[in-house]
Amino acid sequence: MAPKLRLHGIPMSSCAARSMICLYEKGVEFELVLVDFFIAAEHKQPPFLSKNPFGQIPVLEDGNLTLFESRAINEYVSNKFKDQGTDLIRHNSLEESALVKVWTEVESHQFHPAISPIYNQHLLAPLYGKSSDQAIIDEHLEKLRMVLDVYEDRLGKTKYLAGDFYSLADLHHMPMMFSFMKTPWGHVVNERPKVKAWWEDISSRDAFKKVAVGMTIGDK
Amino acid sequence: MAPKLRLHGIPMSSCAARSMICLYEKGVEFELVLVDFFIAAEHKQPPFLSKNPFGQIPVLEDGNLTLFESRAINEYVSNKFKDQGTDLIRHNSLEESALVKVWTEVESHQFHPAISPIYNQHLLAPLYGKSSDQAIIDEHLEKLRMVLDVYEDRLGKTKYLAGDFYSLADLHHMPMMFSFMKTPWGHVVNERPKVKAWWEDISSRDAFKKVAVGMTIGDK
Repeated sequence: MAPKLRLHGIPMSSCAARSMICLYEKGVEFELVLVDFFIAAEHKQPPFLSKNPFGQIPVLEDGNLTLFESRAINEYVSNKFKDQGTDLIRHNSLEESALVKVWTEVESHQFHPAISPIYNQHLLAPLYGKSSDQAIIDEHLEKLRMVLDVYEDRLGKTKYLAGDFYSLADLHHMPMMFSFMKTPWGHVVNERPKVKAWWEDISSRDAFKKVAVGMTIGDK
Repeated sequence: MAPKLRLHGIPMSSCAARSMICLYEKGVEFELVLVDFFIAAEHKQPPFLSKNPFGQIPVLEDGNLTLFESRAINEYVSNKFKDQGTDLIRHNSLEESALVKVWTEVESHQFHPAISPIYNQHLLAPLYGKSSDQAIIDEHLEKLRMVLDVYEDRLGKTKYLAGDFYSLADLHHMPMMFSFMKTPWGHVVNERPKVKAWWEDISSRDAFKKVAVGMTIGDK
């Protein structure tokens, strides 16, 4: 029997959660290796830095192969286990897989740069004893609205972002969306009916619910 | 004969250049459909917005398939034409293709967020009659140095970022690197010998040189 995959991370990390959701969707057994993130900052120490020189979680170890960057981990898992669990990359269709790629890149280059500063300012800064900068939040809420306007139009044409199928393109959004819905600005999502329905749909998936319980940042 | 691929863009755009380099590496014939970017802002008008709702170049049309986001276009081209030209995704090795993915994600989430504000402030802002913000440049030079320190270490172990083979992971860096070398801060690259050698190697490739002649932003 092949050794179990080892995912280094913590459940409350949005990037580790991104890979955990994928592993559950694929029905791949894995061991979560907890990283002492807040006290020892283990991810910034040499043993961990040899796994990911950028000092970030998650890291996936599969035998001798060590991977980092959550989205790259997810592509690998989706490829290696393409015949089990949910097909997240549409590996049987060149056209559908291309559209998955387009909308995963949209997540990386449009959605993430808009939403992550809001997450960092409103949810992370207080954890580090810092105050949040409302001007940064407002600037990025404006960017997020523009991105979600495009999504609203897209989701009027297809059920999910890449087409009428759930894929990595949707999955990669989930941790940030989940945390964002705990901020005072969840109405930005809810006032766009197609985006709201999409979020309610994808956030009701079992693989996501297993991970969401651990994503406690922003809970009162 | 299949209709020729159509790439909408302009040669001086770093994102369009990213896809043009890939098309040349793969030896794929394509038609460059020029977008009236600066005068008519054609990319922000309805006919173009139906191809890319974010109003950005490049867009690739392959028959009825329309794709945007340069990195997604490059994955599609590398997949569809996997048996011709340079193998940019290592499609015969699950492990090597995973490492290509890791380092393309590094480009997206570590390198690009560090270098693009320098590009925007120093090279783009003056084109729009704006002054550049040196504080933003300095902040991001610091981030870029940290990223390139990781690259220096990595390139001491493997000839290219994903391994001992040129891949999309290297290619995706090229337009921004090329423009950055025209700024007063090229020494940030040159004082790291492995990064310098890597850049000299990849920028001497024919596919890149064909595209570089059109990347005139930053020329005196």
